[in-house]
Amino acid sequence: MAPVLILMGSKSDWPVMKNAAKMLEDLGVAWQAQVVSAHRTPDLLQTTMQQAEQDGVPVVIAGAGGAAHLPGMLAAFTAIPVFGVPVPSKQLKGLDSLLSIVQMPKGVAVGTLAIGDAGAANAGLLAAQVIGSFDPTVRAKVQAFRAHQREQVLQGSKLELDA
Amino acid sequence: MAPVLILMGSKSDWPVMKNAAKMLEDLGVAWQAQVVSAHRTPDLLQTTMQQAEQDGVPVVIAGAGGAAHLPGMLAAFTAIPVFGVPVPSKQLKGLDSLLSIVQMPKGVAVGTLAIGDAGAANAGLLAAQVIGSFDPTVRAKVQAFRAHQREQVLQGSKLELDA
Amino acid sequence: MAPVLILMGSKSDWPVMKNAAKMLEDLGVAWQAQVVSAHRTPDLLQTTMQQAEQDGVPVVIAGAGGAAHLPGMLAAFTAIPVFGVPVPSKQLKGLDSLLSIVQMPKGVAVGTLAIGDAGAANAGLLAAQVIGSFDPTVRAKVQAFRAHQREQVLQGSKLELDA
Amino acid sequence: MAPVLILMGSKSDWPVMKNAAKMLEDLGVAWQAQVVSAHRTPDLLQTTMQQAEQDGVPVVIAGAGGAAHLPGMLAAFTAIPVFGVPVPSKQLKGLDSLLSIVQMPKGVAVGTLAIGDAGAANAGLLAAQVIGSFDPTVRAKVQAFRAHQREQVLQGSKLELDA
Amino acid sequence: MAPVLILMGSKSDWPVMKNAAKMLEDLGVAWQAQVVSAHRTPDLLQTTMQQAEQDGVPVVIAGAGGAAHLPGMLAAFTAIPVFGVPVPSKQLKGLDSLLSIVQMPKGVAVGTLAIGDAGAANAGLLAAQVIGSFDPTVRAKVQAFRAHQREQVLQGSKLELDA
Amino acid sequence: MAPVLILMGSKSDWPVMKNAAKMLEDLGVAWQAQVVSAHRTPDLLQTTMQQAEQDGVPVVIAGAGGAAHLPGMLAAFTAIPVFGVPVPSKQLKGLDSLLSIVQMPKGVAVGTLAIGDAGAANAGLLAAQVIGSFDPTVRAKVQAFRAHQREQVLQGSKLELDA
Amino acid sequence: MAPVLILMGSKSDWPVMKNAAKMLEDLGVAWQAQVVSAHRTPDLLQTTMQQAEQDGVPVVIAGAGGAAHLPGMLAAFTAIPVFGVPVPSKQLKGLDSLLSIVQMPKGVAVGTLAIGDAGAANAGLLAAQVIGSFDPTVRAKVQAFRAHQREQVLQGSKLELDA
Amino acid sequence: MAPVLILMGSKSDWPVMKNAAKMLEDLGVAWQAQVVSAHRTPDLLQTTMQQAEQDGVPVVIAGAGGAAHLPGMLAAFTAIPVFGVPVPSKQLKGLDSLLSIVQMPKGVAVGTLAIGDAGAANAGLLAAQVIGSFDPTVRAKVQAFRAHQREQVLQGSKLELDA
Repeated sequence: MAPVLILMGSKSDWPVMKNAAKMLEDLGVAWQAQVVSAHRTPDLLQTTMQQAEQDGVPVVIAGAGGAAHLPGMLAAFTAIPVFGVPVPSKQLKGLDSLLSIVQMPKGVAVGTLAIGDAGAANAGLLAAQVIGSFDPTVRAKVQAFRAHQREQVLQGSKLELDA
Repeated sequence: MAPVLILMGSKSDWPVMKNAAKMLEDLGVAWQAQVVSAHRTPDLLQTTMQQAEQDGVPVVIAGAGGAAHLPGMLAAFTAIPVFGVPVPSKQLKGLDSLLSIVQMPKGVAVGTLAIGDAGAANAGLLAAQVIGSFDPTVRAKVQAFRAHQREQVLQGSKLELDA
Repeated sequence: MAPVLILMGSKSDWPVMKNAAKMLEDLGVAWQAQVVSAHRTPDLLQTTMQQAEQDGVPVVIAGAGGAAHLPGMLAAFTAIPVFGVPVPSKQLKGLDSLLSIVQMPKGVAVGTLAIGDAGAANAGLLAAQVIGSFDPTVRAKVQAFRAHQREQVLQGSKLELDA
Repeated sequence: MAPVLILMGSKSDWPVMKNAAKMLEDLGVAWQAQVVSAHRTPDLLQTTMQQAEQDGVPVVIAGAGGAAHLPGMLAAFTAIPVFGVPVPSKQLKGLDSLLSIVQMPKGVAVGTLAIGDAGAANAGLLAAQVIGSFDPTVRAKVQAFRAHQREQVLQGSKLELDA
Repeated sequence: MAPVLILMGSKSDWPVMKNAAKMLEDLGVAWQAQVVSAHRTPDLLQTTMQQAEQDGVPVVIAGAGGAAHLPGMLAAFTAIPVFGVPVPSKQLKGLDSLLSIVQMPKGVAVGTLAIGDAGAANAGLLAAQVIGSFDPTVRAKVQAFRAHQREQVLQGSKLELDA
Repeated sequence: MAPVLILMGSKSDWPVMKNAAKMLEDLGVAWQAQVVSAHRTPDLLQTTMQQAEQDGVPVVIAGAGGAAHLPGMLAAFTAIPVFGVPVPSKQLKGLDSLLSIVQMPKGVAVGTLAIGDAGAANAGLLAAQVIGSFDPTVRAKVQAFRAHQREQVLQGSKLELDA
Repeated sequence: MAPVLILMGSKSDWPVMKNAAKMLEDLGVAWQAQVVSAHRTPDLLQTTMQQAEQDGVPVVIAGAGGAAHLPGMLAAFTAIPVFGVPVPSKQLKGLDSLLSIVQMPKGVAVGTLAIGDAGAANAGLLAAQVIGSFDPTVRAKVQAFRAHQREQVLQGSKLELDA
Repeated sequence: MAPVLILMGSKSDWPVMKNAAKMLEDLGVAWQAQVVSAHRTPDLLQTTMQQAEQDGVPVVIAGAGGAAHLPGMLAAFTAIPVFGVPVPSKQLKGLDSLLSIVQMPKGVAVGTLAIGDAGAANAGLLAAQVIGSFDPTVRAKVQAFRAHQREQVLQGSKLELDA
């Protein structure tokens, strides 16, 4: 299978979006990350998605901030499922990014994750879950990740005031 | 493949959530809808998800309003991808539902759609897109739906003041 | 000069957007209105803007609701000034539309007007003001409109409790 | 009586939640704090609440941030009164946490306190007030605390510009 | 035991607040409802709370809208636990009421419920849960209510498109 | 005339509220500042206002943060005009303080100023303007302040990129 | 003394603003109401305020909606105290009006009341309180109004479920 | 042609607003920047705009924060198109500035850009686009700027986890 495609509007989104890459890496899913800007390279949206369909990319992850058009525009150009990550904006803290990504009209869908690092990591996780619905190896990795994080909570869960 | 599972916290969510069912129907994807309440039947969350995994359900769609815990709690109990639909709430118009669904912590993901009818329809569409990543027949149906909706825009797109 | 181009994502936006057409009509500026959807006809964005540049369109007015990508995407494909109108959305009342239109990143600009009817009318007015900066006839029409609306305020401005 | 149970989704919530413990300590009410995650250890919610009911825990205090499901899910599994503390989230400053905790549907209640440290301290205070409704010693401690804080306001309440 | 005291700032709050009374009625807990306005009868706040303490009122429920000061001011005058219900306001839909009630400073606590009818009902439920922590009969009533509402969800939970 | 009374809920509000004192000082209006807490010293609200009426205090300025009840409760106990200053809160940045102060019900009014330092300074200014409506000396001081601040804008108002 | 001046941007604001006139009427304070638009008759702002100062107007009340500039601009042209009333806007329900009126910079103050009818009535009340600080007859009327509204709360304040 | 006029309410807005000047400089469009305060020098608004019309200024750019009245009041005094830049405010991060600028009533328009630096730069860009609609040299400069920024995205757009 082709790698999951992680796209973002600017290199400055990478510190957030690399959490998606790390999560996919941890779950044994191949990925590829690239800058494509809805506003500065709009002509590349269609060709990038056509190439992705041709390559058999199973999921596209797209992060953007402010008037965050990238995830929705990619979704408009492809039938591949697109997951959107609202990158925190300087003033409105990503509330603008969130609404711009999630409030898509009927007919073009973006599965939206939380604002910022956690959302990016979860975009990677959700992509792996999608692949896991059809690939038992990945499903097992997701389940192991979940079991591991459950263990971490259980260890030393008692809390003291001196702590 | 098992049908897509559409869950919601209350029968009163069905007028919104049936848009997901209709979209799946239109795209030739089997579905099954059921009321499971995160708050009133919390003990059913785990068993419902265990059954879904056993049945091979490819995607879970969950709708909820207000302190909308259903999508996130289902996601906590399964590795199946979960898509969440914020059902409009009476006073805050679904802004509470949206934040309660989308702002999940790292490690448990919900792909969140728009508030209300459009979001429910798009949850069905996104589920079909996920299945379409692995099933060319469904992928073709999604592409035909997209082409059809493109046609609808093109027809009679000129507008007059008398109109 | 070519007419001002009024674009919107859906015919259902026309009741709002026709206020732009009416204002231009009142100010003696030619206009043309058309449905182009950022999400349902994304491939038309570039060609529509290329045609507009070729035709010498002086201003583009674009209205959209929810995750309102149309104005920003048109702006990405042209050097013609684009004015955006946030169409009220069902649940969030256009706050999502406003943020999605106005919070553009550096390098691609959308001059954004108020949410709804007043904003659409003002998009028409602002387009006429732009043309008026280079065409004294239109400038004079704008000034006459302003003088007229001043008169309307002055007439019968006293208020009584029985009124 | 069994100690008040203070639960939170993550060890990182402890700096906020320990304000509840401190307040209970100051009011002479026994407490016990533990990490239980709604999302990472969902299977422990029911058993934790069953144990609490068996032990005779009089009040449960639960803190969580973002899509803060812990207080509501604990409430769903028990008839013990649950008080929820919205832990500040990184981007939305706890507005998401607040709405996720407070906007519970009819039939499962969470008494919600303010966002952050003050809310956690007040959760401890409110728990003591609940116990005080049935235990005159604790009631007296609450009243003494109130009298003491009144004194602190009265001392040196005059303010000068040089101060 | 003395009845739970339900207070509100205006008779116009009764359609919301009577949901608290109904819930207490259903759970076999005595209640008494009265109008006391923080702003129009501020001198009654202290005497009302002194009387309540003398009578042995176990819980006070207070509803208010807009700059909703009643719950917090009652809490300032008593050691009885106070639960606050944000009554929906005309323009801001109770978001102002919610923040005015929940954001109490350290040292005076109000356990806040959801905006509107559901919140009022849950204030009654939470009051019963508090009493139930010390009175097994009420605890049993709460548990029966929960079991009953669980049954209602289970009955006819399958949903069809024709429905 | 008695000095303008500046009240606040906590000494920690003084860095904001002293801007009111400074402004009054600059405008030659006497003032007195004191801590009175709506929540921690509620019994002092009525007596403080009774004393103020007896002393002939012309204006009360009150600052508070979060569930900011002080200005509204003082207004409830007096016919002296009360101006409220929303003190910035840690998480919600004073939006909660603003709504808690400004959204008063019909019959008890608080004239509310901007959040933070500017609002506190303007509360002092507005108090001076009120006094100036009846005292020509103060009116003249306000006008001189205005003229002075106009001069400051005019001086060196040209801006260069190197600046 | 000259009547209190009630100004508003449009005749359509009168249904809200007449609540200020009614309150002043009830309190025996003379008033005069007029339409002056910050945006459509900006040249009248200065002359209107100059006339008001000459006439000895003690207080100006100004109502406006949306980008509500009227109160702040009037305040910029006069030393008379200005009270602002946020008129509800169609989409954002007056939250825009409120922020546009209240968030004035240091040096020009507007005492802001609640959004809508209650705020307008309270603007009238606050104006009467200001006058009452210097005119014992008006002060007495305000006190009588308060006593009357206290009586109304006390009458029939017991509430029954059948009511 | 006369230079584009960049106005702002205070020298402290220059760090934001100089981004407009820089952009115009880069696009070869002449500009002039000046402080004019809607609130502190209201009498200069009209004369400044009259002078601008006489000079043939093609576009006015105005930045302001909080209750940001400057852009709307300038627009009220001229037929020159006005673009508004919401300067970030200390507490509400420019959400107040944005709503105060964008929500203009029908009949007086402000084309509003994003909050902060990006919005200021885009105001310069949009002004150049307006001029470019009538001046091919400026249009060409805008197109070259766009091409250049496209190139920057394309260079090194691949991203690695080590990066």
